[in-house]
Amino acid sequence: MTEIILLGYGNLNSRLLDVFHRKENIRIKQVFNRNQIKIPGPFRDIPFTDDLHAIEKADIYIIGISDDAIAPFSESLPFKNRLVVHTSGGVSMDALSSKNRRGVFYPLQTFTKNRHLDFDTIPICLESEYEEDMEILNFLGRSISGHVESITSGQRATLHVAAVFVNNFVNACYQMGSAVLENENLSFDLLKPLILETAMKIQEIPPKEAQTGPAKRKDKKTIEKHMKLLQGSSYQKYYEILTGFLMNDPDSN
Amino acid sequence: MTEIILLGYGNLNSRLLDVFHRKENIRIKQVFNRNQIKIPGPFRDIPFTDDLHAIEKADIYIIGISDDAIAPFSESLPFKNRLVVHTSGGVSMDALSSKNRRGVFYPLQTFTKNRHLDFDTIPICLESEYEEDMEILNFLGRSISGHVESITSGQRATLHVAAVFVNNFVNACYQMGSAVLENENLSFDLLKPLILETAMKIQEIPPKEAQTGPAKRKDKKTIEKHMKLLQGSSYQKYYEILTGFLMNDPDSN
Repeated sequence: MTEIILLGYGNLNSRLLDVFHRKENIRIKQVFNRNQIKIPGPFRDIPFTDDLHAIEKADIYIIGISDDAIAPFSESLPFKNRLVVHTSGGVSMDALSSKNRRGVFYPLQTFTKNRHLDFDTIPICLESEYEEDMEILNFLGRSISGHVESITSGQRATLHVAAVFVNNFVNACYQMGSAVLENENLSFDLLKPLILETAMKIQEIPPKEAQTGPAKRKDKKTIEKHMKLLQGSSYQKYYEILTGFLMNDPDSN
Repeated sequence: MTEIILLGYGNLNSRLLDVFHRKENIRIKQVFNRNQIKIPGPFRDIPFTDDLHAIEKADIYIIGISDDAIAPFSESLPFKNRLVVHTSGGVSMDALSSKNRRGVFYPLQTFTKNRHLDFDTIPICLESEYEEDMEILNFLGRSISGHVESITSGQRATLHVAAVFVNNFVNACYQMGSAVLENENLSFDLLKPLILETAMKIQEIPPKEAQTGPAKRKDKKTIEKHMKLLQGSSYQKYYEILTGFLMNDPDSN
């Protein structure tokens, strides 16, 4: 039986609670959170504490708190030589206090309150200071996902940047598309099937091959029409810059 | 029985052939294409011609050819006073020759060869020169989709710009994310579940509310880290510009 203690109870750790709780051979021994929390009904039997000094002994401690808080929090833990991992894409493993055995358990996904997600396909990116700790990380990863990889802090930093492009910047494009429609009183619903198909297509076809549209076709007439239509709007600038990328990217053809 | 003739046999019209062919009360009377084409087995009984003057009489002619070719092609049709529609998001209805009754039948979706798509949820955007022609357009639209809307050429132009943002520019972000990973020999597969969830989330939550990440949090430390990581890469510029959008957008909070 592998015993886990969750440190923090935000979007990710509450999800991990749910998914680990269903697994045989894994026991969530305790949940720590600085503030009192309400653990949902099915997990009511899991002990909770808001007292650092009441944290029990376990095989692994999973920190799920904001990036900036990880270093000072890990330093404040009143024990040593135990396996303590964080779950962040943006923080190096070294940010954890060296008094414990350090590691990372990073599920590469965006977690939103009240949205159900299957863990099965979520890549779990692992790192450990000591090779022997990789065994337990691998066991936990494989118990919830079919896609587990061992990556370094450097690789994870790159992954995190790439994730910003395909998640935050993609969503920025959704925002711009939505704003462009709003000005004409057109519903964003019209774009939803297109948005979904664009993301589905990329599951099978590399992005460069999947690219379509006026910039890809070097269709200057349409581009000029669009630029004119966006005149005076703050979105014209982004249209121009992203069209420039698609027309000039040396790798894009 | 509504009789359709398809003019052109590209990605879209080949899909329309497939989907209309299954419907009662709709008959594909003929397919015209400038070059000889291979119509798949199930549709072998549909007459084909590559001779403009052999085009028969029908209730509606659906042009599915490249944007630039629509105007000259519609002018070259050897008949008049019939209902002729194009299927393009980027072309005004007026581009069609005025010798026929003009209209637009625009399914707002990206069509890729060999990718199956359900038409049920694809918004069909309709426009007609004469009110009485809207009836047949509506009938055809509703026979294949649950989402049919009547929109003007001006609105369609705006829609087309917005579609460039949420499809072509989103895919540009996928390209950038993929390129960033390539430099570190990391697989794009790692990002695929995140890409899908980002698109799924937007089906339910407006893009501004769905936004997350360092720019949204005004997390300058992470942004600086990412900018440093991208130093010397051509993607740094796009990171900076899109982060700027997310940090400064007056509507984003």
